[in-house]
Amino acid sequence: MEEPIRVGLIGAGQMGLWHARCLAHDIQQAELAAAADPDEDAARRAAALAPGARWSTSHEAILSDPSIRAVVIASPDGTHARIIEEAAQAGKDIFCEKPLATDLAEADAALAAVASHGIKLQVGFQRRFDPAYQRAREVIAAGELGPIELAVATTRDPLEAGRPGAGKNAAIFIQTTIHDLDSLRYLTGLEVVQVYANASYFGEASAEEDEVDTAAVILRFQTGALATITDSWRAAYGYDVQVEVMGPKGKIQVGSDRQTAVRHFDAQGVHHDHVYWYIDRFGQAYRREMEHFIECVARGVTPDVGGADARAAQALADAAARSLREGRPIDVPLPA
Amino acid sequence: MEEPIRVGLIGAGQMGLWHARCLAHDIQQAELAAAADPDEDAARRAAALAPGARWSTSHEAILSDPSIRAVVIASPDGTHARIIEEAAQAGKDIFCEKPLATDLAEADAALAAVASHGIKLQVGFQRRFDPAYQRAREVIAAGELGPIELAVATTRDPLEAGRPGAGKNAAIFIQTTIHDLDSLRYLTGLEVVQVYANASYFGEASAEEDEVDTAAVILRFQTGALATITDSWRAAYGYDVQVEVMGPKGKIQVGSDRQTAVRHFDAQGVHHDHVYWYIDRFGQAYRREMEHFIECVARGVTPDVGGADARAAQALADAAARSLREGRPIDVPLPA
Amino acid sequence: MEEPIRVGLIGAGQMGLWHARCLAHDIQQAELAAAADPDEDAARRAAALAPGARWSTSHEAILSDPSIRAVVIASPDGTHARIIEEAAQAGKDIFCEKPLATDLAEADAALAAVASHGIKLQVGFQRRFDPAYQRAREVIAAGELGPIELAVATTRDPLEAGRPGAGKNAAIFIQTTIHDLDSLRYLTGLEVVQVYANASYFGEASAEEDEVDTAAVILRFQTGALATITDSWRAAYGYDVQVEVMGPKGKIQVGSDRQTAVRHFDAQGVHHDHVYWYIDRFGQAYRREMEHFIECVARGVTPDVGGADARAAQALADAAARSLREGRPIDVPLPA
Amino acid sequence: MEEPIRVGLIGAGQMGLWHARCLAHDIQQAELAAAADPDEDAARRAAALAPGARWSTSHEAILSDPSIRAVVIASPDGTHARIIEEAAQAGKDIFCEKPLATDLAEADAALAAVASHGIKLQVGFQRRFDPAYQRAREVIAAGELGPIELAVATTRDPLEAGRPGAGKNAAIFIQTTIHDLDSLRYLTGLEVVQVYANASYFGEASAEEDEVDTAAVILRFQTGALATITDSWRAAYGYDVQVEVMGPKGKIQVGSDRQTAVRHFDAQGVHHDHVYWYIDRFGQAYRREMEHFIECVARGVTPDVGGADARAAQALADAAARSLREGRPIDVPLPA
Repeated sequence: MEEPIRVGLIGAGQMGLWHARCLAHDIQQAELAAAADPDEDAARRAAALAPGARWSTSHEAILSDPSIRAVVIASPDGTHARIIEEAAQAGKDIFCEKPLATDLAEADAALAAVASHGIKLQVGFQRRFDPAYQRAREVIAAGELGPIELAVATTRDPLEAGRPGAGKNAAIFIQTTIHDLDSLRYLTGLEVVQVYANASYFGEASAEEDEVDTAAVILRFQTGALATITDSWRAAYGYDVQVEVMGPKGKIQVGSDRQTAVRHFDAQGVHHDHVYWYIDRFGQAYRREMEHFIECVARGVTPDVGGADARAAQALADAAARSLREGRPIDVPLPA
Repeated sequence: MEEPIRVGLIGAGQMGLWHARCLAHDIQQAELAAAADPDEDAARRAAALAPGARWSTSHEAILSDPSIRAVVIASPDGTHARIIEEAAQAGKDIFCEKPLATDLAEADAALAAVASHGIKLQVGFQRRFDPAYQRAREVIAAGELGPIELAVATTRDPLEAGRPGAGKNAAIFIQTTIHDLDSLRYLTGLEVVQVYANASYFGEASAEEDEVDTAAVILRFQTGALATITDSWRAAYGYDVQVEVMGPKGKIQVGSDRQTAVRHFDAQGVHHDHVYWYIDRFGQAYRREMEHFIECVARGVTPDVGGADARAAQALADAAARSLREGRPIDVPLPA
Repeated sequence: MEEPIRVGLIGAGQMGLWHARCLAHDIQQAELAAAADPDEDAARRAAALAPGARWSTSHEAILSDPSIRAVVIASPDGTHARIIEEAAQAGKDIFCEKPLATDLAEADAALAAVASHGIKLQVGFQRRFDPAYQRAREVIAAGELGPIELAVATTRDPLEAGRPGAGKNAAIFIQTTIHDLDSLRYLTGLEVVQVYANASYFGEASAEEDEVDTAAVILRFQTGALATITDSWRAAYGYDVQVEVMGPKGKIQVGSDRQTAVRHFDAQGVHHDHVYWYIDRFGQAYRREMEHFIECVARGVTPDVGGADARAAQALADAAARSLREGRPIDVPLPA
Repeated sequence: MEEPIRVGLIGAGQMGLWHARCLAHDIQQAELAAAADPDEDAARRAAALAPGARWSTSHEAILSDPSIRAVVIASPDGTHARIIEEAAQAGKDIFCEKPLATDLAEADAALAAVASHGIKLQVGFQRRFDPAYQRAREVIAAGELGPIELAVATTRDPLEAGRPGAGKNAAIFIQTTIHDLDSLRYLTGLEVVQVYANASYFGEASAEEDEVDTAAVILRFQTGALATITDSWRAAYGYDVQVEVMGPKGKIQVGSDRQTAVRHFDAQGVHHDHVYWYIDRFGQAYRREMEHFIECVARGVTPDVGGADARAAQALADAAARSLREGRPIDVPLPA
């Protein structure tokens, strides 16, 4: 067995902890070397997953450790771009949770750092590693639906995710819609040329402007194909991610499943459960994206989901936010 | 048994023939008295369904027959408003297929005639008579979902429905989207205040301007609730009508079903059929809407789906067409 | 239009009333001429469905009316065989609800009368007229599953159907299991050579011997193919009829469906309804079997589901009852 | 972290390799210390999963290693009982794949050794660790269905599993049916008092007597409740394990799922995949049963699925085989 890739985790919240678990337990080629989080408990908990892993409250300790070859960034969204730049300067290969940045200018600065230091970057669009999405893309890429004409994407997060303030500045587009934007690009292989968005806020009273927890978007692709996206942070029934893509020969649907294969029949009808937690829907995809990253680092090849895809989705999320502010459809230039 | 209501059919195409069948065979209280269609064969075929029914190539014969109490209008869309006016003058109660008219001005003239002659008018929004839509509305009206926040409506017609020229002037909005507009109003009990639409044409080459066979719409309701509609006339796999409506306590989904309760498992996977023909999905609803109309005529009461609902949906379809032309969201006044 | 076939209904309970409705309203070629039932109200109610239909408390009035060409027998099971004989003597073509008789000897006497008077007989195995069963049979007959090896059939009637005394003498086999026996013969095209049955009673206290409301059966076909049947009269959740048939190339499944295409998602999971009433599952099949009968009478041809099939299913039901009594598998001779 | 439990694998075929993977990668508390298999390649492959694990072609090396605290037996069925006795003598705690033995006498000898040496024994009935089965049992145990009356269990293995000779001596009962027997006991909490079985062979020509690849069984429980089991080794469409359990208040169904959440709609209908490999259906359950075993070893407590359950299922499988030989139902004594 080759020497494992030593990885440092930056940001040990819920998502970071899951990545740490994959690195520590599931991926033989990786070694969780260190975990950093301003919350000491969080950093300690993540480091405890692997024998010998160190912890710190600052990510500088990770960046300055020459034995660490790659970092996983799962810190708050607003810190991603800056940490990418620092990690690139430190010569670390980078897996960064989406989004790349909070706006396109920041994203471009981060990507420039990645380019100039020649390091690998992968962005956390885990749906691309889900077998259902991959199967759907194969069907579409093989032309089994004909040229794509229409798509409908849905993401619903459980209700408790919506807290006053969390949705300010229409953050739903950059936090949630960005997954739908990326997966529609991934599935159809098409680029978007126009974005229209509308949104509302139904949460508890909030003093924030532009607080949003419910959004509807129409995309127009370069071919005239159309797509809608509806996103909500207020689903009582669980985590609900679906997409359907249609062409003149048929449609393909990636649906939401029961959590367990049980149905209960009684005098009131038929009842079954629903996936509630995003890890239950995409746990396998999170593990597979990390395996892909580690393998790319080990073999020195460029990850499948890198800066260009991250930037393209970011540009669309920015356009959605702008469409909401300006109340009109926004034209989007094709990616360079 | 009371004297049956004698009904004249105006327009004996596919939809008219189905209504004739319901009147002749299924509804005891009704009697198909006559059928008119410029196509003599069509008129004869419909009249042949009931013993003693007469046929003609012009609807004047029906309007001038004092023994006929009510008419069913299933002629081409562009003739609806004019025939409603004539039938109202002749004192006939009217069931008219949607849409009421091709634009709002025409619709208002027809409704004025209906009002001034004091006759009953019902419009063919058959989804309101489908048990699944009715059940969904009950759940929503009972507050089981909480205040509605988000809805997603889909209508897909089989591919052959799309012929060059049929979709000119963005007719998809008035022919197809109008069903989604009405059913969203019916289900949510809310009024729309803004409409944005985008559309494309993927059919065979067409010389027509504004030819459209694929559309995407965002609605904003008075409460801030949002809805998307995606419509296509190009479904290879059949007739596909779905809607889901969500509030903070849950969502309700009216789905498309298998045609027959058969699943075939083989080495390639699992296979089942799909509803192909709109009659197979809504046959019961078409019969029930006609029963409702006949009962309203017999009892002298106003039908549940009358001019106000028809006008409201028409106004939204008009706004969608205008949004497409002008490339911006269109504000819609609340119904009077 | 040809002269309609005048039909007399004998037995106007729930099932008879449904047949009367089909004859009166749905089948143009038939005319409900008369209805007989010892319960005068029931006879009147059925006759009221068709203008001019007469009623009586005795079926002799029907048999002696020369204008009546055919009868539908939906009287209690114990009277079927005798009325068939009388109707055959009177020269009427006969549609008889299953079972033909309460035992094989009685059945043979009835079939002898049918043969000697040269009249048409159809038996009420309506599943053969259900599109799902027909589709399944086509798939099997086309060899798409390969030679059949294994089948699983299920019938569950709603709980209230089980009343003390109703299940005496293991009547479940002749009343309910007979449908599964017939549909397995219909689907597979194979004959059964051995039957084993076990059964229990879970209803309220009953003084009857051999009271049964729950049964399990294994069939062995001539080819070595095996089938199980489980039947219950105690389903809280509705009417549940399913079958799956398997060969080396796959399996086909005829399933139970939702009543309405609605799903409700809430914090407890996902909920939908279940077919509750047998008419809701097989209403179309009941109408189609009656259309077939009337057409056979009109054209003078032998119905598809006649005496031989009725006798074969009866022989298997008898064998199941005997297996239960004797506690061992019973060999069954192949039909002549 | 406590000292991990060192485990030796005996039998490194497909199932053994899976257990090895769980021990090496997924269960922190366990350490795969050694792997033995007469096939050197198999032994090497399993040992390679864990750094430092040794391999051998004989299990004596494992039993004589005092640092090894527990063994996992996944060798051929006919060797289980003997190896259990040897491992018990060596003082190792034992996880043994089902079945315990090839007949009841052998099983009793193995259980006596386990008892006299005071070691822990867990048997590989992994369905008990599947969340769907566990949820179904909870519903039943909570009385939500009322007292159980009827159950239907199904196991279908993919076609290639059936090779000439594999099914001799009606081995299907001890290899496959035993899972259904155990899961019906687990779900209902009831004991079986009578077993009837029938079976056939549809595979390629075989010289073996009692070669069986398709079986149907009826169980009668102590309460009069009934169950059917149908098992086949010839499913073209994949791995298909289902059970439904019914009482007077409803039924609960554990079903087979799609492998991926994708549906493809085209002009031929709707298509989706089916679970094909048993690991894809029960991978989580295999991991969870092994976690349970390791935890029981670590804490010195008795595993949930031990000798008594293994013996009870074995007695029922033996009765099924005897019923097939003797052509009659076999009474089974209640477990001591």
